[in-house]
Amino acid sequence: MPSPREADPKLQKAIDNVAATVSKTMAHLLPESDDAEDRLYDAMRYGALGGGKRLRPFLVMQSAKLFNVDETRAKRVAAALEFVHCYSLVHDDLPAMDDADTRRGQPSVHRKYDEATAILAGDALQALGFEILADNQTHEDPRVRCQLVSAMACAAGGHGMCGGQMLDLIGETEEFDAGTISRLQRLKTGMLMAFACEAGAILGKADEPHRKALRNYAHDLGLAFQVTDDILDVEADPLETGKPANQDEAAGKATFVSTLGKEQARMRAEMLVAQACRHLHIFGDRADMLKAFAKYVLERRA
Amino acid sequence: MPSPREADPKLQKAIDNVAATVSKTMAHLLPESDDAEDRLYDAMRYGALGGGKRLRPFLVMQSAKLFNVDETRAKRVAAALEFVHCYSLVHDDLPAMDDADTRRGQPSVHRKYDEATAILAGDALQALGFEILADNQTHEDPRVRCQLVSAMACAAGGHGMCGGQMLDLIGETEEFDAGTISRLQRLKTGMLMAFACEAGAILGKADEPHRKALRNYAHDLGLAFQVTDDILDVEADPLETGKPANQDEAAGKATFVSTLGKEQARMRAEMLVAQACRHLHIFGDRADMLKAFAKYVLERRA
Repeated sequence: MPSPREADPKLQKAIDNVAATVSKTMAHLLPESDDAEDRLYDAMRYGALGGGKRLRPFLVMQSAKLFNVDETRAKRVAAALEFVHCYSLVHDDLPAMDDADTRRGQPSVHRKYDEATAILAGDALQALGFEILADNQTHEDPRVRCQLVSAMACAAGGHGMCGGQMLDLIGETEEFDAGTISRLQRLKTGMLMAFACEAGAILGKADEPHRKALRNYAHDLGLAFQVTDDILDVEADPLETGKPANQDEAAGKATFVSTLGKEQARMRAEMLVAQACRHLHIFGDRADMLKAFAKYVLERRA
Repeated sequence: MPSPREADPKLQKAIDNVAATVSKTMAHLLPESDDAEDRLYDAMRYGALGGGKRLRPFLVMQSAKLFNVDETRAKRVAAALEFVHCYSLVHDDLPAMDDADTRRGQPSVHRKYDEATAILAGDALQALGFEILADNQTHEDPRVRCQLVSAMACAAGGHGMCGGQMLDLIGETEEFDAGTISRLQRLKTGMLMAFACEAGAILGKADEPHRKALRNYAHDLGLAFQVTDDILDVEADPLETGKPANQDEAAGKATFVSTLGKEQARMRAEMLVAQACRHLHIFGDRADMLKAFAKYVLERRA
């Protein structure tokens, strides 16, 4: 995992801690198998445990902290969400989708194994995510567990991440305006980020104003994240991002940069981050880490 | 949907009724969308609503009836399970998997749309299945909903259906004995069938002996179903099955027929069906329809 250059040391330490601890939980939830279908579990582990910034888990852990949620529970939700995020990356890299040979500088799952194994590994990672949420170790109150399942299914499905990926593909051949790109990104990246932020509130049985504050924060954060992703795609060093530069442009994809230009895109990201931080007012200085994270999104290099 | 030749009229009517009513529930749960990601929902509907025997929904409805479960609830669970079954068919037909150009005599989803759309439609159908189960319209008791999510995730995931599909792929290049083929089929087909049968018991908060009886019935039924599938693959008329004959053999797949021979395979199926029916003893004649269904599996032609 390449280190961001500009994150403040306290935030960087917190991000690193979460990445280490949630990766451990993920490895525990996805143990090596002795069965003949070993190959599937190998591929699932390869796709899910081989690094990654674990930014969504960070949001889960930080939002859970706001409501003093037990850390073991929060880690399970963080892991479940990250498994779903990882499944989407495995499928996204497939030849019929983004056709990416590498991910984080390593061969993508279908290059390391084969396409069929990558399809199945992604499918099984999604099921695993829901299995973890529904388990009573995740929360003793089954209402909370059902809310988690509902919210994650909604964020991941046709009106969420999958819908955004569909728009992304349509965008390869159709011209999108900035509004449609915003919608695309809200679905593709924003909904799962929003679930990450709301998960802590669900686990903590928070009231609606607190949930709403986190949802709004996540909404702006998700967009800012995607705008900076688009900027990174055109200017980043492949050695730092672990993927080739100008991948989106090469694929003919509509991005915030292609639509707004790089300077306007950067201003948009800055505005979104400021707005994201204002939504957290309700939490006072307890949300400082989430605010710092929003600023980090702006300054990251990978 | 080709009609089986030998099903008794009462059973046939019950199967047809469930297929019609659950298909209606599925259409209701997967309405047309006005969004730009329309293409995704079109593909989801194409993959899920275009016919199919709805045998798993039949098992859900019949097992729910044993415990006097409200029909509206049972239909939601039947629909959720069928969406998951349909997602697996959409992915199974992909070029990297079974590479099937047709399904039920119609172009498969990736032939009608494209591969990327088929991958995403499958992914979104899986999420939809879990979203439906977790919704409070499915059952007022959140413990029941969590049990449904857990059981379906377990049946669909790496130690269930996906694991069986992985074994299936490995079987294209490796020699399997009858034991491994049984395990493959138990995972690939049996686990989701077992969930179908157990779902009624979960909805009805049945005690362990009743659940176990249904699980055991499903186990034997699932195997019998697969053995007859293998027999149909070598002898069926493509016009009736809606897919080419000898597809498995052409793919080099290990099947019960290739391992046991057709006559032994048929005897195995008969033995399994008799055994399946014996497990239902605990329900008396209330389970007659499930017993008739097991016999129908043996005699179906498609």
